[in-house]
Amino acid sequence: MLGGSQSSSALGLVVADAVGAGSRARTSAIVIPMADRTFAKFSFFKVDPAWRRRDPELRAADKQEFLAACEDYAVDRSLRAYSTIGTRGDVDLVLLTQSPNLDDIHTFHVVLGQSGLAKWASTPYSFLSMTKRSPYSAEDARPEICTSERKYLFLYPMVKQRRWYGLAPEERGRIMKSHIEVGRRYPEITINTTYSYGIDDQEFVVGFEGDDPGEFLDLVNELRPTESSEYTELETPIFTCVSMSVAKALDALDGTPSAVGTGAPALG
Amino acid sequence: MLGGSQSSSALGLVVADAVGAGSRARTSAIVIPMADRTFAKFSFFKVDPAWRRRDPELRAADKQEFLAACEDYAVDRSLRAYSTIGTRGDVDLVLLTQSPNLDDIHTFHVVLGQSGLAKWASTPYSFLSMTKRSPYSAEDARPEICTSERKYLFLYPMVKQRRWYGLAPEERGRIMKSHIEVGRRYPEITINTTYSYGIDDQEFVVGFEGDDPGEFLDLVNELRPTESSEYTELETPIFTCVSMSVAKALDALDGTPSAVGTGAPALG
Amino acid sequence: MLGGSQSSSALGLVVADAVGAGSRARTSAIVIPMADRTFAKFSFFKVDPAWRRRDPELRAADKQEFLAACEDYAVDRSLRAYSTIGTRGDVDLVLLTQSPNLDDIHTFHVVLGQSGLAKWASTPYSFLSMTKRSPYSAEDARPEICTSERKYLFLYPMVKQRRWYGLAPEERGRIMKSHIEVGRRYPEITINTTYSYGIDDQEFVVGFEGDDPGEFLDLVNELRPTESSEYTELETPIFTCVSMSVAKALDALDGTPSAVGTGAPALG
Amino acid sequence: MLGGSQSSSALGLVVADAVGAGSRARTSAIVIPMADRTFAKFSFFKVDPAWRRRDPELRAADKQEFLAACEDYAVDRSLRAYSTIGTRGDVDLVLLTQSPNLDDIHTFHVVLGQSGLAKWASTPYSFLSMTKRSPYSAEDARPEICTSERKYLFLYPMVKQRRWYGLAPEERGRIMKSHIEVGRRYPEITINTTYSYGIDDQEFVVGFEGDDPGEFLDLVNELRPTESSEYTELETPIFTCVSMSVAKALDALDGTPSAVGTGAPALG
Amino acid sequence: MLGGSQSSSALGLVVADAVGAGSRARTSAIVIPMADRTFAKFSFFKVDPAWRRRDPELRAADKQEFLAACEDYAVDRSLRAYSTIGTRGDVDLVLLTQSPNLDDIHTFHVVLGQSGLAKWASTPYSFLSMTKRSPYSAEDARPEICTSERKYLFLYPMVKQRRWYGLAPEERGRIMKSHIEVGRRYPEITINTTYSYGIDDQEFVVGFEGDDPGEFLDLVNELRPTESSEYTELETPIFTCVSMSVAKALDALDGTPSAVGTGAPALG
Repeated sequence: MLGGSQSSSALGLVVADAVGAGSRARTSAIVIPMADRTFAKFSFFKVDPAWRRRDPELRAADKQEFLAACEDYAVDRSLRAYSTIGTRGDVDLVLLTQSPNLDDIHTFHVVLGQSGLAKWASTPYSFLSMTKRSPYSAEDARPEICTSERKYLFLYPMVKQRRWYGLAPEERGRIMKSHIEVGRRYPEITINTTYSYGIDDQEFVVGFEGDDPGEFLDLVNELRPTESSEYTELETPIFTCVSMSVAKALDALDGTPSAVGTGAPALG
Repeated sequence: MLGGSQSSSALGLVVADAVGAGSRARTSAIVIPMADRTFAKFSFFKVDPAWRRRDPELRAADKQEFLAACEDYAVDRSLRAYSTIGTRGDVDLVLLTQSPNLDDIHTFHVVLGQSGLAKWASTPYSFLSMTKRSPYSAEDARPEICTSERKYLFLYPMVKQRRWYGLAPEERGRIMKSHIEVGRRYPEITINTTYSYGIDDQEFVVGFEGDDPGEFLDLVNELRPTESSEYTELETPIFTCVSMSVAKALDALDGTPSAVGTGAPALG
Repeated sequence: MLGGSQSSSALGLVVADAVGAGSRARTSAIVIPMADRTFAKFSFFKVDPAWRRRDPELRAADKQEFLAACEDYAVDRSLRAYSTIGTRGDVDLVLLTQSPNLDDIHTFHVVLGQSGLAKWASTPYSFLSMTKRSPYSAEDARPEICTSERKYLFLYPMVKQRRWYGLAPEERGRIMKSHIEVGRRYPEITINTTYSYGIDDQEFVVGFEGDDPGEFLDLVNELRPTESSEYTELETPIFTCVSMSVAKALDALDGTPSAVGTGAPALG
Repeated sequence: MLGGSQSSSALGLVVADAVGAGSRARTSAIVIPMADRTFAKFSFFKVDPAWRRRDPELRAADKQEFLAACEDYAVDRSLRAYSTIGTRGDVDLVLLTQSPNLDDIHTFHVVLGQSGLAKWASTPYSFLSMTKRSPYSAEDARPEICTSERKYLFLYPMVKQRRWYGLAPEERGRIMKSHIEVGRRYPEITINTTYSYGIDDQEFVVGFEGDDPGEFLDLVNELRPTESSEYTELETPIFTCVSMSVAKALDALDGTPSAVGTGAPALG
Repeated sequence: MLGGSQSSSALGLVVADAVGAGSRARTSAIVIPMADRTFAKFSFFKVDPAWRRRDPELRAADKQEFLAACEDYAVDRSLRAYSTIGTRGDVDLVLLTQSPNLDDIHTFHVVLGQSGLAKWASTPYSFLSMTKRSPYSAEDARPEICTSERKYLFLYPMVKQRRWYGLAPEERGRIMKSHIEVGRRYPEITINTTYSYGIDDQEFVVGFEGDDPGEFLDLVNELRPTESSEYTELETPIFTCVSMSVAKALDALDGTPSAVGTGAPALG
């Protein structure tokens, strides 16, 4: 499903760590079944300026191949696209692909790599992450993220300072509580936190969905004085991503509609 | 409007943070209407040396397309251009585009990307920011920045140390006051601060407009011993930008006037 | 042997340092014979997007030459291949070559450099390391690492903070003990630690083999609150590597099977 | 004037900051007239290896155009050239241009950008700075720097730790005094300090002129234990620049004399 | 002389600083004559993958020109070559050139730059340094370094923390003593320390020569708990360099012998 309307509640903001991990009565290799956990892969593309010098028909074909790979994946799995043209200088296009199966994501990127556009693009960033049950919430791990219809996704990798993990679980819970309370005042902003411990460079990938960048800017400003903010080690780069169909995000690359792209409602 | 003469007062210098954010009586999703807030997008271009090896007519056409996109945008929105040739090695040209609507800025960069020059340029830096009411001033958010006719813009991204946000609001106000007082001694220098919390890597984009780089250098030197300076985490890279029309900034790229550029008074 | 079935026990997790080094009664140049120590060289390849634009037959030949070099090496030495397509943006293919003789590894890379594929690839990362007896275990240095049949290898370089080495050996032993205990709860995950002191930038290369990325993510999360975690200086970049034969890893580069690759059971 | 013989005394070493800035009785926009202040622009060029593959006649023409731009500038302004071939890997050629007028420097770089050589070169570093009256000396700001006939220029950007600026002016004066005394023992080494506060990334550009790199190495070694050294935040990269005429520095790029270069005594 | 057999004793390990510099009775510009001091220049080359796509005859000619420049230099000066193929990903070939005269080294690199190979190579690293009398030894400055016949050179730049230089000379001497004692237990490993204060980015270039990487790894591991290790600011990147003749190091680049290289015993 691409850009489905399934809503996600703004239960918490950055839900970081391992509260209770030490006290969990785990003695051997019993892995908690988590059928609902999903991989969330953020792929960032920057198009070679030389690609823009190609003939329009070649560019249209290049985009069409890229689009076809996306459409194929999205038949029964989640794929979202975002443009960062005008908001970032180092990235043009962001894809978010989700699956409970990492092989799916590997295979999709193999296929995508054969498309014409991928032959003229680099991937300056890449975030691999998974959903996971939050220690600050009673909810299960989310089976899918970024399902809202908001116009923007504000996306960044996050690493907590190591001293954060040395705090007692109750202390971490207390600190997160005031953090979460600030977020509750902004119900129009939806949070999507996924986890990358040990599978990618960051600890979390944090994505906020909203319609008003100014509102989100104010929220982040309000969070600065909260105690949890002092435990942040890294939270850049920050990507302001404009949500749109794959076809539109591709057309934004060279300003011209691809042959079939704009007429593909299934992808937007 | 490009390079209009609307003056802006030098009320404060770096006006950083969220004083009073915690005490603001805000209980739910009530967003303060801020019709006047504007997005300010700084786009930095570095031309591929290979572009300079193209035929003069091709270069002229490349520049003309870039100029046309700028002129079109500037019909009813603010666009400023600056050259950094001779002041930086990693950037040649800076565009500042403003709009209360982020879609405008996205669309402009889509169009710009189709111009010949963009096909031979990289964008080593990019700052997305918004205006915002300063916690140290009674003024509203500015609807437009960088409106002076000064010759230079001294531009840099800024991040405050996190401990700054842990200070009490009155303490932050006290510290900013002496900072602002130094700035008041330099009335010929105009400050333009915009905010990037959560929408780009930096927290602020700070731009000083002035006619005399030596005077600005002395101001910054005087600010070093002020208390607020100790809370700076990052304030580089610093760009000394020479203000000029888009046409002139383009002609500085290869030292030759484009076909129509120099005769376009509306752009500069 | 390529991808042999020799199992390796999960004795410890990150086994870092020099416990007892100071107290070892070593007075002159007596080098402990360590015939079993092996070099482990991790080579990371990123294919130039331009390679994907080459004709299919040329690409097949390029891959075939690369494969032949690997097959030749693997006749009597250990060589493993991994794909990072879909998990990383900066790397496509990882080779792990092992030998007790560094000349072997040098010569292999000379030969590999002549293959068609190497002429279109860069090597953004490279880790040279050796096995070594762990100060926290009674076992000898392992003669070979990464011998499991697990689906994934989670790989990263590690550097400890210098203050770690200032602790007394017993203190380091005590801290590592609780670290190791967490690892014991995950018997399905196998650890492979090699050492790079003085021969490459990192101090250790740590590789975890497992079938379930979610399980490994949970393990790393559980390790965050352990005391040993506070002594980590660096443990990125982290590579989630999909284990497969060389032929399959090569075919993942352009999505097409090479002429002989897929039929080469000896390689994986 | 290029490489004139005007001597400059070795009054002090690194003369860093704003002693007395706070106490200066300055109440409004009164700018101290400093007709003698000059801009000093250091431009660093790295030639594309592909340029060395061009035909000798084309290379000679490329260099000749670059040389002509320099000669034109140097008719009535200061321009110095240095080669870093054999001393650095990331830079081949350094130009120092000076003028009391920043427009001069902008225009010169526009012209230089049109030369053949600039079409095959990148500019990995760039330092913009100004002369300024030192707080530790009674002398006026120098109207020109790097005027000696010494064989080498040892050049680096410098940033002081912020806590330096929090010291009382007398304390800073005391610390600088012992620093300066070490420098006085090396009268054959001439110091040239310029300032970049707010106009470029560094705070200072420091250039030492001398004939004996070993002597300078010993001086820097002697300075390490001085108190002022503890306040250094950054002082790399360090460039050992070989002083020579523009023509010779150009000829060092490809080892062949350009048509007219070597016979141009006015340039070196 | 290339790879001469002159032995160098393993007197000390990293001999860092300026003990006694403050107390040296030096009142004016009296420079201690040091005729024996030599410049040691480490140049690191990475070959463009495109070079490997050139015709074999062209590659042979490219290498031959490079070799000829080296042979010419080595007639009466020291030149050593090392291959890093298989040990590093960012460097292929390292040259160490020595001379008491920096002009020699500049001129050699001008000539080398004209060789075919240099037209297809980049220089990702470069270390300029000099020999110097050690404050921890009674020996004079060495007139030449890296003169052993060992198989490997372990090479890295080093910077000490500034607080090191604030210690009293006796204290530094005491700390270095236990450091040196560890080194004495490894008489098969030879140390070569040169100095870069003020002439390049690092403070030292440290090179250990040995036949057994595992032995060196153990030595570095043993040094970690020594007190001196706590004062290290930087000691990466670390290069494991395989010592060989220039001709062999060149042939390792493309796996094919150059026309005359292998038969040149004078070079290796």
